[in-house]
Amino acid sequence: MNSDTLNQRRTIRKYTDQPISAEVMNRLLQTAAQASNTGNMQAYSVVVTTDNEIKQQLSPAHFNQPMITQAPAVLTFCADFNRFSQWCKQRNADPGYDNLQSFMATAIDAMIFAQTFAVAAEREGLGICYLGTTTYNAAEIIDVLGLPTLVVPITTITVGYPAENPPLTDRLPLEAIVHNETYSGFTADEIDALYREKENSDFYKNFVAENKKETLAQVFTDVRYTRTANELFSEKFLQVLKQQGFLK
Amino acid sequence: MNSDTLNQRRTIRKYTDQPISAEVMNRLLQTAAQASNTGNMQAYSVVVTTDNEIKQQLSPAHFNQPMITQAPAVLTFCADFNRFSQWCKQRNADPGYDNLQSFMATAIDAMIFAQTFAVAAEREGLGICYLGTTTYNAAEIIDVLGLPTLVVPITTITVGYPAENPPLTDRLPLEAIVHNETYSGFTADEIDALYREKENSDFYKNFVAENKKETLAQVFTDVRYTRTANELFSEKFLQVLKQQGFLK
Repeated sequence: MNSDTLNQRRTIRKYTDQPISAEVMNRLLQTAAQASNTGNMQAYSVVVTTDNEIKQQLSPAHFNQPMITQAPAVLTFCADFNRFSQWCKQRNADPGYDNLQSFMATAIDAMIFAQTFAVAAEREGLGICYLGTTTYNAAEIIDVLGLPTLVVPITTITVGYPAENPPLTDRLPLEAIVHNETYSGFTADEIDALYREKENSDFYKNFVAENKKETLAQVFTDVRYTRTANELFSEKFLQVLKQQGFLK
Repeated sequence: MNSDTLNQRRTIRKYTDQPISAEVMNRLLQTAAQASNTGNMQAYSVVVTTDNEIKQQLSPAHFNQPMITQAPAVLTFCADFNRFSQWCKQRNADPGYDNLQSFMATAIDAMIFAQTFAVAAEREGLGICYLGTTTYNAAEIIDVLGLPTLVVPITTITVGYPAENPPLTDRLPLEAIVHNETYSGFTADEIDALYREKENSDFYKNFVAENKKETLAQVFTDVRYTRTANELFSEKFLQVLKQQGFLK
């Protein structure tokens, strides 16, 4: 891997027809499994979907974003204390993983596994896209993939050989996300300075105009990630945590 | 990066005295910030602690694991909708991110950021260790680091130049974590087969004996990750989500 693969990465949403060979997919998953995880319990799992019919069934849960059906492989990464708990029961041990703390541990491990897969895939020349819709419509994904108790989908990655080469995405100055020693808040002027370059770019000025909003922030709060939607999907996800046995 | 850095990685718990230069640390954080995140909101943050006194204050929250005080740098990765919400308010936009779904989105993004940092650090010849204690004692970490509302610590990485070279850690066969097309459960025989090599290894046989247990699974359920502890820390974490404003 050259350094460019990591700090010059782009999210890829369009893929060629080339399938991913079983040999490549297994190697990437094996590499990802070597990443850190809690107590080496490997309390996570991934469902690798390549079948067109099942991808079609998954599509509405992801608001029919075209990557789901167009990508050769859709990987649903799951918090999973099911297999570990079954093993415990077969070994005269009483598993106590039906709670929020265990959910957090397995969700964190699922994400470490997912992102290591993403890095390994990009190193291989593949392109990936994360789908945040996974926690919005976890209930529907659970139905399509047949996820049992103590399994909750956390994120989805579509993967394939790139059929586009988008520009590098902008990021805020590092001071927006890095705090030294302890957490320091921001003054109003500091916030203005952190967002100045972004807000003054032609790209985002056009984005605000296209969305018929006054400010870039309003595109997020009124169009893309609204309170109404967030509260609806929060209630749905709370029910999923209960239904799958992670919350009383 | 050669491929070994990713699939031959080891968790490093002992570090030399060599500090990490500001130039190296900034480069790694910049690389990590290029990773995927939800809607490019960059709703996450990291507190980089190198001061000995603050590391001492963090230590009890991590059950005094020696990595915290011994590592030259302790990175606390946080779910963080605080800065983004402040920006929204300064831009005549009403932020609706004080809910569970927003917490999941920012926690996921914090983990993608954290693991990309880990991969970048290992590529640089540094060693890292994740600390799962972060969600156990999030309340204490919030106090020490002064984390405001809509900021919750998700994971901690200690990082430094390696002073040990531990063997590669075993992993289960890939079939334990990978499901094809949809989720397939395991028969009792399949569970036995997946855990056979692990359970028959001298390393784990000694581990069971040292812990005075009958089975390896009992070391997890009775000693390392007990129901009592999990339920206690679940209640603590639920209170943290409420206190920090992510749950009503």
